[in-house]
Amino acid sequence: MTEEHVQQEATEEQPEPEVDDRLLRLAADFENYKKRAARERHEYVALANERLIAELIPILDDLERALDAAEEHQEAQLEEGVALVHRSLAGLLERHGLSSIETEGRFDPHVHEALLSQPSDAEEGSVIDVVQKGYRLGDRVVRPARVVIAAAPPVPEEEPRGDA
Amino acid sequence: MTEEHVQQEATEEQPEPEVDDRLLRLAADFENYKKRAARERHEYVALANERLIAELIPILDDLERALDAAEEHQEAQLEEGVALVHRSLAGLLERHGLSSIETEGRFDPHVHEALLSQPSDAEEGSVIDVVQKGYRLGDRVVRPARVVIAAAPPVPEEEPRGDA
Repeated sequence: MTEEHVQQEATEEQPEPEVDDRLLRLAADFENYKKRAARERHEYVALANERLIAELIPILDDLERALDAAEEHQEAQLEEGVALVHRSLAGLLERHGLSSIETEGRFDPHVHEALLSQPSDAEEGSVIDVVQKGYRLGDRVVRPARVVIAAAPPVPEEEPRGDA
Repeated sequence: MTEEHVQQEATEEQPEPEVDDRLLRLAADFENYKKRAARERHEYVALANERLIAELIPILDDLERALDAAEEHQEAQLEEGVALVHRSLAGLLERHGLSSIETEGRFDPHVHEALLSQPSDAEEGSVIDVVQKGYRLGDRVVRPARVVIAAAPPVPEEEPRGDA
């Protein structure tokens, strides 16, 4: 469609034949490039997913072996299996750029989500408990860490209030 | 670089100014499009992976809970945890187009890999055991099923061989 449109316009103006040709050729190249780029985008996504999925298959295998061990009540093997699967999956995710969000120190609203604040001996506003681990993929937070933070210390009530 | 090249050639031929302009504009658009397409390809791949990775995080959570149960020797919870993780991962992979390769019936070199053949009552060339499950992603075999196939029945040796 766009190609035809370009051709028509070019004809109306009657320019030098070589330039007209070059304009048409460039327009056609551009169109072909656009089509190829759209096709490749799909292929790249499929390929990217395929690699990750192929890496997950051995983990599924290990899980199935662990399930078999569970069925046969081979507890030691089951525990080993779960530890193996965990190492494999954590390693795979790390290789693909996933890292866990640090929760030591002060609450950081960019990477933490405060579920509640509790009175604590810790400094006000510091993270005192992690309810759910958070993760970054590269620089992006894919899931904030859900944490409990230290509240302000309660106001001391020892002093007599005078006419109470 | 390509833009400059196009400009130079166009100048040498001294064509109608409007067409020359249009050629230059189209060449510049083409260049910009190429750059954007390359950038988007990277973003698409990153985004595709990011979705899959985000889906894997809850599975990692469940695995960690299963590991905690293992440490505390809560066997029932450990078994439940492993079954849950298996269901989640298998479901995720299925949603992303993974399916296991059928191994009933005849050996099929397109989807099966024969590890060995064994004498068997089954029909010669049929699959009699699966050593490792195989998988397809969409139409593509990402891993063939590794199988044992039925060998030809042994030649009966009951008949007397005459002058042996």
